[in-house]
Amino acid sequence: MKPDGRALTLYGLAPVEVESPIPSPDPQPVVARPQMRWHPVRGEWVMYAAHRQNRTFLPPPEYNPLAPTHDEAHPTELPRGRYDMAVFDNRFPSLIPDAPEPDPVPGVPVRPGVGKCEVVVFSQDPTGTLGGLPVEEVRLLLDVWADRTTELGRDPRLQYVLPFENRGVEVGVTLHHPHGQIYAYDHLPPVQTRALGQMRAWREEHGRPWLTDFIRTEREAGLRVIRDGGAALSVVPPFARFTYETWVLPTRPAAFLSDLEDAERDAFAAVLKDALMRLDALFGVRMPYLLTVQQAPTDGQSYPEWPLRIEISPYLRAPGRLKYLAGTEQGAGEFANDALPEQKAAELREVALAVL
Amino acid sequence: MKPDGRALTLYGLAPVEVESPIPSPDPQPVVARPQMRWHPVRGEWVMYAAHRQNRTFLPPPEYNPLAPTHDEAHPTELPRGRYDMAVFDNRFPSLIPDAPEPDPVPGVPVRPGVGKCEVVVFSQDPTGTLGGLPVEEVRLLLDVWADRTTELGRDPRLQYVLPFENRGVEVGVTLHHPHGQIYAYDHLPPVQTRALGQMRAWREEHGRPWLTDFIRTEREAGLRVIRDGGAALSVVPPFARFTYETWVLPTRPAAFLSDLEDAERDAFAAVLKDALMRLDALFGVRMPYLLTVQQAPTDGQSYPEWPLRIEISPYLRAPGRLKYLAGTEQGAGEFANDALPEQKAAELREVALAVL
Repeated sequence: MKPDGRALTLYGLAPVEVESPIPSPDPQPVVARPQMRWHPVRGEWVMYAAHRQNRTFLPPPEYNPLAPTHDEAHPTELPRGRYDMAVFDNRFPSLIPDAPEPDPVPGVPVRPGVGKCEVVVFSQDPTGTLGGLPVEEVRLLLDVWADRTTELGRDPRLQYVLPFENRGVEVGVTLHHPHGQIYAYDHLPPVQTRALGQMRAWREEHGRPWLTDFIRTEREAGLRVIRDGGAALSVVPPFARFTYETWVLPTRPAAFLSDLEDAERDAFAAVLKDALMRLDALFGVRMPYLLTVQQAPTDGQSYPEWPLRIEISPYLRAPGRLKYLAGTEQGAGEFANDALPEQKAAELREVALAVL
Repeated sequence: MKPDGRALTLYGLAPVEVESPIPSPDPQPVVARPQMRWHPVRGEWVMYAAHRQNRTFLPPPEYNPLAPTHDEAHPTELPRGRYDMAVFDNRFPSLIPDAPEPDPVPGVPVRPGVGKCEVVVFSQDPTGTLGGLPVEEVRLLLDVWADRTTELGRDPRLQYVLPFENRGVEVGVTLHHPHGQIYAYDHLPPVQTRALGQMRAWREEHGRPWLTDFIRTEREAGLRVIRDGGAALSVVPPFARFTYETWVLPTRPAAFLSDLEDAERDAFAAVLKDALMRLDALFGVRMPYLLTVQQAPTDGQSYPEWPLRIEISPYLRAPGRLKYLAGTEQGAGEFANDALPEQKAAELREVALAVL
């Protein structure tokens, strides 16, 4: 537990050892009163989180809140010690478990912003990348994501857990220490609600999960597969929205990372690392991307139709050329992609990887 | 008609006069074979448009394709003459009316990218802005959008018409000459499909269109109204997704801009200009934004439940701080807004406008 009351969990390939007090950048808790309001036209909740930011110190220029604390005058989020990864409650959360009842708004349903926001630090090394971690550590991250999903899902208020990584200054990430986040919602968000409906309809119509057909079809076609690792596979999906969009999937249906056996997780980690390294090698720059872990709802029901996958949406469509979400994407919800997935999968396959 | 076969329409407050041949940057037509593929998990179409770009000349550094042609050696998209606005077929369209049948993709529904993409030039002056135009010209633009919607909607293949403006280098717009675009789809896109369902349900439950209740509630509350222009109103909606999100609405239900009477369009233009000028004055920089004109489907049916509106999504949430669509917005479809609409509406009301 941090001085301001937030939880911290450390993970390691070797047994974890903590060598300094558990710190927080500020001992004062942040007062958050997140709320949600219903968007009547889009038919979705919008989260509001205005924080009273009572920071009591100005960080030095090189201050990195995700590095282990080395100067006790400027505590970070993490202690010194032997561990590889860390998870802690976000100091400025959009959702909290015990959000208070907000003031009513005439004509608009309003409710507390119940949920949880966590930060996941991938490494003690501030210069690394997720794809650059040893494959054992990528595998450890799968275990961490699986553990957090199970742990958060145990709270009956939390119905969906979304681990993700935003990477790149191009998408507003100013903190380059390798890390991701987890959002846990008290309801099924729009993208997953829609996916569940689609996947249920597929299973009813075809008598088997969509994933089974997808893996078979993509293996047969071959065109779009980036790497087939046996129990896991990476592919530019034939319906990719981003130019170099890459999905990493298990080759048998699964709803959660925790459904995968040991050997399957090893294969998944290897294919994920391979996919990320190809994206960085493609243009010789760190590819800005959004990575999301798409698992089933955590309401305790069974979801045999759910296609577990990691979706990577790279933001560069060519060297130095970002994809922006503009008129058609935002105003109509319909993506325009300037290249066919078959061509882009071939480019990703042809990337020369020195390490792998 | 342009030399490469594309259509051009000129609009003016005064009668239009053309004083030079209708140009095109390149006399060779661009060969487009756009296609759409069905995203089985998101349940939506994705557009693919890979163009054979056979440009035969290198433009000079100051070349502006949206300015009138002054050097016949470097033709632009527009002739010289007396006109205020121009609409022409996009030279690199994501959708075309006669898209050919694409090659099949195993496991994924694929179909021709049928639709239309147009460019709308707001002014002959390359340095201006939409909000900075005289109110008569903003009004003319409403007429142009209404005319294009009617015209495109006449094609039985086109079911939805979306006029929009992307503005700002921050969102990838490199061409600063004031202009927007129009996308016409052969189906109702996801955002509008969802909106139609929500608005129908509201009307069935309450016995009147949502817009009627919304205008009454917002006028009564007052808190979020930026400007009440009688027949039109600007407001930061109580469910805003972007920090300074601004909606401009008529104060009586309407489905299309063409449904508004002359005096209503005048009021709408004045409120729209006011809203745009406030956004530019707010931080003293040209606010990057997406503006969309949200009208009803153009399939010839009647849509009494549809709330006509212009939505402006400004991308700055504070001076120099952009809103990025990251993990929760893209991975879950759920927006996080860092401020309450009530506060931001007050800021926009307090902006001192020199001109208005």
